[in-house]
Amino acid sequence: MSASELSTVRPASGGATDALRRSNLATVLGLVHRDGDLSRSDLTRLTGLNRSTVGDLVAELAGLGLVEVGEGPGGGRAGRPSPVVRVSESVAAIAVNPEVDAVIVGLVGLGGRVLKRIRIETASARSVAETVTLAAAGIAGMLAGESAIRVIGIGVAVPGQVRLSDGMVREATHFGWVDEPLAALLAERTGLRVWAANAAVLGLRAESAFGAGRGIDDLVYLIGGASGIGGGAVGGGRLLTGAAGYAGEFGHTFVRTDGRQCSCGARGCLEAEVTQEELLRAVGLPSAGATSLGSSLVATEDLKALAVMERDYGLLQVATRNAVNAFNPSTVVLGGFLAALYRGARAHGAPDLLSGAVHSAREGVEVVEAQLGPDQLLIGAAELVFAELIADPAALLAFS
Amino acid sequence: MSASELSTVRPASGGATDALRRSNLATVLGLVHRDGDLSRSDLTRLTGLNRSTVGDLVAELAGLGLVEVGEGPGGGRAGRPSPVVRVSESVAAIAVNPEVDAVIVGLVGLGGRVLKRIRIETASARSVAETVTLAAAGIAGMLAGESAIRVIGIGVAVPGQVRLSDGMVREATHFGWVDEPLAALLAERTGLRVWAANAAVLGLRAESAFGAGRGIDDLVYLIGGASGIGGGAVGGGRLLTGAAGYAGEFGHTFVRTDGRQCSCGARGCLEAEVTQEELLRAVGLPSAGATSLGSSLVATEDLKALAVMERDYGLLQVATRNAVNAFNPSTVVLGGFLAALYRGARAHGAPDLLSGAVHSAREGVEVVEAQLGPDQLLIGAAELVFAELIADPAALLAFS
Repeated sequence: MSASELSTVRPASGGATDALRRSNLATVLGLVHRDGDLSRSDLTRLTGLNRSTVGDLVAELAGLGLVEVGEGPGGGRAGRPSPVVRVSESVAAIAVNPEVDAVIVGLVGLGGRVLKRIRIETASARSVAETVTLAAAGIAGMLAGESAIRVIGIGVAVPGQVRLSDGMVREATHFGWVDEPLAALLAERTGLRVWAANAAVLGLRAESAFGAGRGIDDLVYLIGGASGIGGGAVGGGRLLTGAAGYAGEFGHTFVRTDGRQCSCGARGCLEAEVTQEELLRAVGLPSAGATSLGSSLVATEDLKALAVMERDYGLLQVATRNAVNAFNPSTVVLGGFLAALYRGARAHGAPDLLSGAVHSAREGVEVVEAQLGPDQLLIGAAELVFAELIADPAALLAFS
Repeated sequence: MSASELSTVRPASGGATDALRRSNLATVLGLVHRDGDLSRSDLTRLTGLNRSTVGDLVAELAGLGLVEVGEGPGGGRAGRPSPVVRVSESVAAIAVNPEVDAVIVGLVGLGGRVLKRIRIETASARSVAETVTLAAAGIAGMLAGESAIRVIGIGVAVPGQVRLSDGMVREATHFGWVDEPLAALLAERTGLRVWAANAAVLGLRAESAFGAGRGIDDLVYLIGGASGIGGGAVGGGRLLTGAAGYAGEFGHTFVRTDGRQCSCGARGCLEAEVTQEELLRAVGLPSAGATSLGSSLVATEDLKALAVMERDYGLLQVATRNAVNAFNPSTVVLGGFLAALYRGARAHGAPDLLSGAVHSAREGVEVVEAQLGPDQLLIGAAELVFAELIADPAALLAFS
């Protein structure tokens, strides 16, 4: 049944009303969070709720300090200006992304806008305790003097396998972490609620909410960076987590018989065979030059570089063919250096990325590049927090 | 919100009540269909609805002729016998499964019981028109004199890619079919409503409802037969169909560099590398001997047979490792000759099937054999029909 059918059912007491109200609040707040400024008539149309119900819900969200009602763009024209509902600028989440050589900390406003971002450079190998100390210091500095901001919680994007239920890092091979309770330690240190998840999955959440994956129900996502290749999938409009949160490990797709040893223990994984480092080296870029990798690959005429690109593209084809056969997505989103590889190879006449997939499964499938760039992981980490807020605004605000 | 919270909300009029009633009817009928005999107190407990609501729903389903209320097993003991609700024996679906050398037609009762089953032997290659003619003849014969049976519709299990929206067979390479409107033709011929889907996906539906996948929310399923290898996945409790119904093509997982040419056009697919025919030949069984393949593989000491088994098992390991890394299931279900291969290889000391998967993704994952045997596809095909019936009993009965 639709929310609209239920909204008029208002008995005097009982759990049903509360559950309905929470569900409707979540619908409205989610729309304003993802879509930006919306008029009340937009909300009426998008939710199927009636006008007075929408008015009540917006008033309740405004009372909680989560949305603001202001003048819309039509305000200067003739006729009554249509007031627009937008997220409050004072509600934010902290996002933390430990990388191999730095801890990145961001402040992300409701609505997915990155308000602040710092990069704390570190030695290459460090413990979870050091990471927590650095992140907590960065967070304290970032929030100093920001008395107007209400921080709802912390989201952490970890390049490794994270158990969703409690934010336990099961394995992050690039740091040498095994079974580290990162989320619990950071919560203890900061006094804030903390959620953690795999970085690639959070990149997918960000792209799904605000980027290349907006409104797409069946999506496969692969992203490559300095610390390897990750991914995730959306099926039937829902993020596929798997039984414990580890789904979408496309970096460990088998792509070559008798291939290289992978850090996971197997041989011939995509992540072991295709690396950002090698592609950078092939076109003569330094490790820090990943942002110019795409244009360098497009421009290169060096035969050795072309050979590396051709080999890597062929292996990426094998991995995406498998993913398309397994998930039958409507869109494949490529991020990080995989987007650069795709752009470079196609510019040099490489065949369609999905040409090896089963005909019907690949039919009409679009291959697109991720849109959110380097802020992707911070936005995705903040989504972990905002999803909890949206699901039950009043409950989470009581903690913040 | 739970169904129980809603069930007490009963305004005098409006769409909400109808939608609630339909949703509650679907819940009750679905439980009786999947779980068999249930007392009213079982239903009260399982649905969270109150006793009188359950009573009303059962009465309505009984009025529609979908369930019967009878004496329970406790009838002979002291105290009041607890009446049990069970599916009506007169409600059934037709299941059709075209195979390479036969058309199999079944009559499957609500509750997933195969009541009748015929196998119409055919020449090996045939057109869709011939298949429809043979199936319609078999159906007519099967229903002759069965005036007490109410046939709700026809479900077709096709070894090929089928577009879910209209039952169009996009590609069935073993028959040479491309873009054949099988469901529409069979509907026209029989006057019954027809749904069609990929056979392996229907095997998964059957195992999910009544077999090895009962109650499992995250599941990967691979099944092998004479016409190749198929599969499917359940994620978060829902069958993953993909954008157009082609998800789960695990037979086309890449497993070997420079491998054999596959019928899909690619090289090195699992289905091209690992075949039932070769395994049967290795242990000296005829094509029709698939049911004894498992025990023959367990018993064999022939070095050549052991070598074929070892090779095939290694390739199956690659495919399942990919599927586990991609889906992070809690259970991998193997059916058909893949179950036989698994049993045989393990009996001869082969390593864990999932040993190559990422550590966290494979942790706690169980590998089990499919339970429903040769009736699996008929039960799954009937599920296509029963799912529609359960979703809206009154609407579908109006057509039957």
